[in-house]
Parts: sequence; structure tokens; C-alpha cells
Amino acid sequence: MRDLMEITARPEVISLAGGLPDTSTFPPGSFARQMTKIAQESSAQALQYGPTEGFAETKECVREVMRAEGMDPDLDDIIITTGGQQAIDLVAKTLLDPGDVVVCEAPTYPGAVPVFCSYEAETIQLAIDEQGMIVEELERVCDRLAADGRRPKFVYSVPTFQNPAGVTMSAERRARLVDVARERELLVVEDNPYGLLRYEGEPDPPLYALEGGDYVLYLGTFSKILSPGIRLGWLCAPPPVMEKVVLGKQAADLCTSTLTQYFVREYFAEGRWRSYVEDLCGIYRARRDAMLEALERFLPAGASWSRPQGGLFCWATLPDYIDTTDLLAKALRENVAFVPGAAAFTDGRGGSSMRLNFSASSEEEIREGVRRIGAVVSEQVELFGAITGEHRLSGDRGEDEIPPGDVLPFRR
Amino acid sequence: MRDLMEITARPEVISLAGGLPDTSTFPPGSFARQMTKIAQESSAQALQYGPTEGFAETKECVREVMRAEGMDPDLDDIIITTGGQQAIDLVAKTLLDPGDVVVCEAPTYPGAVPVFCSYEAETIQLAIDEQGMIVEELERVCDRLAADGRRPKFVYSVPTFQNPAGVTMSAERRARLVDVARERELLVVEDNPYGLLRYEGEPDPPLYALEGGDYVLYLGTFSKILSPGIRLGWLCAPPPVMEKVVLGKQAADLCTSTLTQYFVREYFAEGRWRSYVEDLCGIYRARRDAMLEALERFLPAGASWSRPQGGLFCWATLPDYIDTTDLLAKALRENVAFVPGAAAFTDGRGGSSMRLNFSASSEEEIREGVRRIGAVVSEQVELFGAITGEHRLSGDRGEDEIPPGDVLPFRR
Repeated sequence: MRDLMEITARPEVISLAGGLPDTSTFPPGSFARQMTKIAQESSAQALQYGPTEGFAETKECVREVMRAEGMDPDLDDIIITTGGQQAIDLVAKTLLDPGDVVVCEAPTYPGAVPVFCSYEAETIQLAIDEQGMIVEELERVCDRLAADGRRPKFVYSVPTFQNPAGVTMSAERRARLVDVARERELLVVEDNPYGLLRYEGEPDPPLYALEGGDYVLYLGTFSKILSPGIRLGWLCAPPPVMEKVVLGKQAADLCTSTLTQYFVREYFAEGRWRSYVEDLCGIYRARRDAMLEALERFLPAGASWSRPQGGLFCWATLPDYIDTTDLLAKALRENVAFVPGAAAFTDGRGGSSMRLNFSASSEEEIREGVRRIGAVVSEQVELFGAITGEHRLSGDRGEDEIPPGDVLPFRR
Repeated sequence: MRDLMEITARPEVISLAGGLPDTSTFPPGSFARQMTKIAQESSAQALQYGPTEGFAETKECVREVMRAEGMDPDLDDIIITTGGQQAIDLVAKTLLDPGDVVVCEAPTYPGAVPVFCSYEAETIQLAIDEQGMIVEELERVCDRLAADGRRPKFVYSVPTFQNPAGVTMSAERRARLVDVARERELLVVEDNPYGLLRYEGEPDPPLYALEGGDYVLYLGTFSKILSPGIRLGWLCAPPPVMEKVVLGKQAADLCTSTLTQYFVREYFAEGRWRSYVEDLCGIYRARRDAMLEALERFLPAGASWSRPQGGLFCWATLPDYIDTTDLLAKALRENVAFVPGAAAFTDGRGGSSMRLNFSASSEEEIREGVRRIGAVVSEQVELFGAITGEHRLSGDRGEDEIPPGDVLPFRR
């Protein structure tokens, strides 16, 4: 991963690998204005330690963002974290003991996998389809665990514009998941970094809004609607959990940067954050469209992919004899990068899939990047045909069969 | 601790509790200049994710700081962390399994205690005196553990201007500790947040410089020489440890703030950081002197305290029938705060001691704060006399006896 980052930082490489927003769209004038104001009015405070749970003013900004998606948490239920990643880490640190079960989606956010592993949790990944997590699967898993006297410590889900699959949980599934959480007294951790980055369709309410915040913990971040370089995210949790999270945060890094919290406070005071998010949506919508067109044009028959209504990612699945980890090495030689699907699984699945990001490259780069990927894939398809004498496009299964171990629905 | 922070934030309270540098001394003009430059020249990059291990330019600043104390690490041996606290957490996360032994000083940095606890380590605290850690004690502990087939996973030490005791490890002890580390292949974690804040005397080399970086891991921070609000610290470790630390960092918060790293880069490019540290030393020296004079004047006979040559803290020990946790409640009613000594121990010791900070208050506030503490202590001494009919100043021990369970040497 470290090497991949170094390679993709080279200017000649088109990286569809990262999850980077396009920060070049943020107006430098606004940045300079906020910072000058902070330096003039509150330099000493901005450079000082802050409260472990974050400043009330930052929490007010969080509330503004959450209200834009129909939520209205108490300030006391919010803790400001060093990015959304720390929120995941703190939840895991607070709730998990070795051997505990965490349930998440298949595929799941690649950055969550090492967190659950580091606390020695057993991770169970649930199948998803175009409607997101298959909640009946969750119930079956819970029943199976209950037979052994066990239960999941929590369910981790990215219901909206899922990372990496790009799918969004339907209203029915959301309602059912919340019912299951209540019925079974099951904690659900809703990770929602992309909710406001919607390019089409109407939003369904977040799980946190539907449930009310007793069984649903909520993770958010300023990374995708403002800047990841400021490392500001948050977690909403009810008081008994929050108390332990605050202790965990104190041990982890004492408090979140005061300077970057002040920056967000000043930026939100300008009152233009929503119009910036609208600008972003316009830019990313065109890039998503460019990616979908390029996938249609350059990926060979037998490949399939998701059509996200928002967020940053498409998920593509190739014929099952192609290993995307091997493919990445070939792709890098053609100066294009993606995330191999295996990174989104804990059990070796996902080997024929890849995550493709469309927020960090221009439309032209996206087209060229997908063209290069398409070329290395086609080469593999032809090679397979030459070696086996077959011209299989999706392994040896019938048309309606599902690629073993991969995500169900993203067939062309 | 959370309530204490809220109380001490009230303007009428003189807080000698925190470990806050005086950020009001930092020139706001310099702050504004760096930020304007970043906004003009590299807004998009400053707002973007950065590499997990930190930017090479930030590491160059770290090297400049470390060279000022006689060290010269490879850039590859440095990782930039979200403050010095995260460096402690990452070392613990990387090295500790439940039940492992960590050896540290008695008293130790109060913020390290919950970290070692959170990884379920067994913490053994070694007696210290005016020369710092008593290394013979360490050897005895190692021998005792070896008899059970065990060994410490690492030794955690703040050798210079120790938090909380204010003492500094002598050159002889440093040399001996490094020998012990090599002889026994024992990892030593040297935490050095205050080394450049020296108000008198000549520095001895850091353990990292003496040993060479094979068995000594080194933790540093910009918090005390620049700003804690930017949350920038670092860790130096040899490659096999660093590899795991980078993975731990990635899971913890992906990367350290790019924005605050760029701020440090620009600030160091101005070339005035050493003269700012000299200014700080002048200010803190006068405050330390004010505290030592006030302690002499206002604490009753039977109290003792350390006389630090640098750093931020004095450590005072009261007659052993006084519990400083109880005393704090009384002190807060008089609008003065300190850290009760018990926070610096894992085993209930330190109950008659307190940590007093002199960097965050003016000389006048320090005098008034210590006067108020002296008044509540004197009240307790008199009350004890009235109840017992005795006028003991140091419990029932003879003059040369040591207060049970407290730090040895800080007798008046």
C-alpha cells in the first residue's frame, strides 16, 4: 500500500486508486481569508490544546452538516475526531475485545479491515446487491451466532454510495435494518462520508435519523465535503458509549487539532459550504459519467460494474480467471492504478474485482485511465483464450450464475 | 479529568494543572504569513491527504530539531504523528500484547498510564531520584522477571525535565541505561518533549544519540517548542518496528494533517524557530523561579519539591496524611488547580504529591496560585494537629525516612 502510494504520486501515473476529493476546487482565497482571521483574532487559542471531545463551535458545524441530511444530534453526543478513520478506530477500540464478531458488507471499506483485525475481531462479511446490505442475511448470521451463544458486537455499514461498491441501501432495507437493530438490541455503526455527494435521485434518511441514535452510532467527516488534509471527522454515540470513546480519544491523541477546527468554524461562518458541495457534485457527476461511458467502451464483455448515484467509487468485476492483484502490476507498467478488490474482503474474496475512483482525476484522465485498464484486461482475456483454447468471458459458469466470491449484482 | 478541564477553563481559576505551553508568545504575524503563503502557493495540496509516514519536508524540520540536541536520524526512521501522544499510543499498539510488561518511572507521565492500560500491559514503576531513573532498579526488575522467563517489552522514560517529577537523568545513568539496553537487548522508549526548554545547566546527550537508534526509540513533538494545537509529533524507530508502526498509523487516522505539516514547513523555512525557543526559555525560566520562590514561601514545613532545570513542571510532596485528590476539591473552591500525584502512578502511590505547571500562567498568577494551595495545605496541617493533638509535619516517620510510596528525593 505504501509503495502503491509512492508510485501513484508520480505525475505520469493516472491513479484511480485513492479516495481523494479534488481539493483544487476549493477557493484558495477563502482558505487565506479564514486563516488570516484566525491569526488576527485568536492565534494563541488556535495554537493551543483543545478539549478532548472537540470545540462546541466545531460541533455546531457538524450539526449543520447532519441537519442537511435530516439528523439533529445533541452536541453532547458528538466527539470531533482526527478524520473519519479515527472515528472507526475509536469505535472499534471502545467496543471490541479479541474474538468479538463484527459484521460488515462484502465488499467493505478497505480502511476498516485493518482496524477490525488490529483489535482481533472476527469479521463476517454480508452479501450486498443493488439495494445494499441484504438484511435477511444479517438476521441469519445473528441466528447462527445465537445458536453458539454469541452475537455481533456491532454491524459496520456504509449505506450510502458505499465504499467500495458504490451502491446505496434502499429505504426498505434501511427500515428493516433499524427494526432488526431494535429488536435484537444490536449496535449499528453507520459510516456516511459521502451522503451529500449525490449526483442523481432522492436521498433516503440515514439510519441514525430513522433509529434515533440509541442503537445506531454515526460517523461523519469533513474530508469529502471540504478537505481531508485538515483531518476532521466525528462520531455520534449515546452517553454510555461516548464516555468510553472520550477516554479512548484522550489516550490516542489527547485532542483533535485546534487550528483545523478553527478553520472549519470560520469557513462555516462564511455560509458558503453548501454551495461548494453543490459545485463539487457538478464536477464529480461529470467525472462519474465519464467513467461509466469509458467502462462501457473499454472493458471487454464479461466485465460488470456498479452505477453509483453519488460518492467517489465504481466497483468493477472482471472474468473470474483474472486476478486484479496481478493485474495491478501490469496496469502500473501502463501508468494506471486501481485498488484490487481483495483489499475490501477479509477472507480472500474479491480477487476479480477492482475499486475505481472518479473524483480525483479529470474526465480526460478517467477516459485514458480506463482505456489503459481495458487494454491490460483484454490482453489477459486473449491470453486465457490462447492458453485454454476457450473464449470464456466469465469463467466457466452459465450466464446467470454469480462470480464466486464476488459481489452479486454488477453484471453488464 | 474532563470535569477538571472544564473547571480550569473558567477565567477566575488559576490552573497549575495542565501541561500547556504559552502560545500567546507566538507571533500572530508569523502565523498569518505562513498561512497566506500556503493558501497562495499550495492550497490544493495542503487540503489533501498526505503520506501515512508524513511529508519529507516535515521530517527535515524534525531532523533540524533533533540535530539541535545532537541527534541525526535517517528520514526513513521518522514517522510524523498526530502529536506526541499518538507516538506513545502507536509504540504501545505496535509492541504490546495483553499481559506484557512495561517498565516506566515512578511517577510517570500521567497521559502514558491509560495507554499502557488500554493495551492491558502490566506496568512496573521504578523509583527515581534527583538523577532520574535508578538503573540498578531496572536491572533488578529484569532479573526478577527473567527468573519467571519474562522480560519487559520496553522501558518508557522521560529522561530530561521529567513529566511530572521535573528531574533529569544524569550522564552516568544515561550511559548505564544504554549499556543495559544493549546488554539485555531491551527496547527503551525515550520521550523527550521538553529537551530544548532548558533554563540552566548543560545538556547531556539524549539516549537516542548515545545508543544509535537500535534499541532506543525516540519520541518528539512540536507541541512545546511551537504549538500543541497543530497536533504534530514524531517517532524514530528502526525499520522492523517502523514497518508495523506505519500500518498502525494507517489504521488509526490514515495520515497526519497536511495543513499543519505545511505550516511547520513554512515556519521552519523562516529560520527563526530557535530564537523563538530561546524567547520561551526566558519566559519560562522566570516563571519557574517564581514558582520555586512561592513554594518556599507558602508551603508549610514538611513539604518538599523538585527544582527542575527546564521543562514545565515541579513535583511537590506534602505530609503523608494529606491526600492530594481530596485536597484538589478544596483547592478548586479557592479557584486553583493542580494534578493530584496519584495520576502519575498505576498502583495507588503518589497520594500526597502534586504536579504543578509553571509554563501556562504569569509570574503573578503562579505566586497567587501557590499561595492559595499553601493556604489549603496549611489548613489541613492544622486540622490534623487539632484532631490528633500532634503537630506532625511529615507523618510519624523520622526526619530521614522517606514518605511511603512517594518520590524519594524532593525533601526541603
